[in-house]
Amino acid sequence: MKKIMNKPEKYVDEMLAGIYCAHKKDLKCVEDDLRCLVTTHKHPGKVSIATGGGSGHLPLFLGYVGEGMLDGCSVGDVFQSPSAEQMLAVTKEIDNGAGVLYIYGNYNGDIFNFDMAADMADMEEDIRVESVVAGDDIASAITGETDDISKRRGVAGIFFVYKCAGAAAAEGKDLDEVKAVAEKVCANVRTMGIALSPCIVPRVGEAGFSIGEDEMEVGMGIHGETGIRVEKLKTADEIVDDMMGMLLKDLPYTEGDEVAVLLNGLGATPLDELYIMMNRVGQILKEKGIGLFHTYAGEFATSMEMAGASISLCKVDDELKRYLSASADTPFFKQHKLDE
Amino acid sequence: MKKIMNKPEKYVDEMLAGIYCAHKKDLKCVEDDLRCLVTTHKHPGKVSIATGGGSGHLPLFLGYVGEGMLDGCSVGDVFQSPSAEQMLAVTKEIDNGAGVLYIYGNYNGDIFNFDMAADMADMEEDIRVESVVAGDDIASAITGETDDISKRRGVAGIFFVYKCAGAAAAEGKDLDEVKAVAEKVCANVRTMGIALSPCIVPRVGEAGFSIGEDEMEVGMGIHGETGIRVEKLKTADEIVDDMMGMLLKDLPYTEGDEVAVLLNGLGATPLDELYIMMNRVGQILKEKGIGLFHTYAGEFATSMEMAGASISLCKVDDELKRYLSASADTPFFKQHKLDE
Repeated sequence: MKKIMNKPEKYVDEMLAGIYCAHKKDLKCVEDDLRCLVTTHKHPGKVSIATGGGSGHLPLFLGYVGEGMLDGCSVGDVFQSPSAEQMLAVTKEIDNGAGVLYIYGNYNGDIFNFDMAADMADMEEDIRVESVVAGDDIASAITGETDDISKRRGVAGIFFVYKCAGAAAAEGKDLDEVKAVAEKVCANVRTMGIALSPCIVPRVGEAGFSIGEDEMEVGMGIHGETGIRVEKLKTADEIVDDMMGMLLKDLPYTEGDEVAVLLNGLGATPLDELYIMMNRVGQILKEKGIGLFHTYAGEFATSMEMAGASISLCKVDDELKRYLSASADTPFFKQHKLDE
Repeated sequence: MKKIMNKPEKYVDEMLAGIYCAHKKDLKCVEDDLRCLVTTHKHPGKVSIATGGGSGHLPLFLGYVGEGMLDGCSVGDVFQSPSAEQMLAVTKEIDNGAGVLYIYGNYNGDIFNFDMAADMADMEEDIRVESVVAGDDIASAITGETDDISKRRGVAGIFFVYKCAGAAAAEGKDLDEVKAVAEKVCANVRTMGIALSPCIVPRVGEAGFSIGEDEMEVGMGIHGETGIRVEKLKTADEIVDDMMGMLLKDLPYTEGDEVAVLLNGLGATPLDELYIMMNRVGQILKEKGIGLFHTYAGEFATSMEMAGASISLCKVDDELKRYLSASADTPFFKQHKLDE
């Protein structure tokens, strides 16, 4: 295991201590629990948004806490859900009197704990909580001939949900309206990923699986969940053609549509390779008559040192374009208002 | 070689095509040469700033072309200098009538070509050009007992030079003043890096060196230049203690100083590890009585899929704090104006 770290059991908390050190003007913890992270910028009357999930995915999840996006986040150990109590602590701290929206990925542990936290917030604290669960990974629920969309996992595409719901909340929309925006984005986002190398959970000390030196795993999850097939490494264009083929027909995205694109690196993949993929994505969209509204490229949802990439498409209309274009200022994601 | 790419000889140009596709509102090429990249935002009367260097270091160099930073960039093949003619083409395109400042790293190929481009700009185009060469890597000129500072290579710390000089130019300073700012930053920036794994130049197809499974190379350059020693991988705290020990005594940075910190990943190192390092950097600065003005963490100057990290310190005064705090908006670096 070749990681720059101290003891594996301190991996998450020392990472968090570094984040508080680096971003002390913008982030603080709740009740001295480093794993309950909230913005220092309160906006009375604004709907608050919380997320959470396992560590090991930076900048997911906590990286999007900040102006124009999220208000708080609870994180667990690497690839582990935070507890309902931690989620509740964040919820209490961030509530501005307008209710709290939970946005998180479709994983059983997170669902169990967020649901319990929502119940406690309602019953013990009189805070109204609504939840939106993102499941954008189109490869994640395929079993034989079946593909149960309700079981799809949440991956990098959740960025679009955070961005739009965060902008709606910042605009002053109420809880039902912000939730409707988040649900609309979820309905319009799809993600497809490939992995070229595994990652190592620090406490485990070795990779839980391997990928051959000339192979890639198509549809692998961001915790190393098995994909839909292992195949020989192809050229960038062939890889993107396959991924985009699956993505476009899933929603479907068709001629006349307009999309935002997120080219996400899983942790060890150079930006060069993401832009080589972006070039092909742009060509395919053009061929299909699909407009390209805006692009994002970089590391948005990672698996530590895993090599690989995902492509997320978000179909946009005027409303979502306005939300995507809004200014955002978080430690890990900054955007100046886009030109109309 | 496990890269997401097509033919090695198309690696750079397809990456660039992806960048133009993704950022077409903000970037364009000159004379149909993808490797000559300039901003689409012209500011008549503003001093222009150009940089350049080999590919394989994204977001260096071209990623910092945009509002509040640079106006243009020429790039070569992976780890190769662009030509003087390409630098001249960029220079002609970006000049706003106020002269052009070249800021680039201390490598012989780049110096040769930038000097030739400056001469051509002056003689053929009547454009005044000044140059500032960054050499922030404190490990790069150590040979036996000698350490010739003038031979130090430029690495991630050049980000601070771009940021401050770009802000000075955006403020309306003249060429001599912008050059003085760049020189001042160069005088106050130091960087120290370690590498855990090599990278592969696409055309070569295999790593030019190896690092043992339990080893790291201290002081390795961003093209894989030999460092000052190979040693067993230590804990994060021990690694940072060693790096900060060398950095602090080099300028030196001492009690009462204030610094900005850049924790840079070389390409395959997770953000978690950078923040574990950041935590220790913050502790050391506090112990030494050195103020922490602002931090940056992420990938700012990479070597494709190399694992490793560098720490850059920039000593700041009121003037440099103002420039660092200014807004910036480039495809790869965005910052809202920092609170005073």
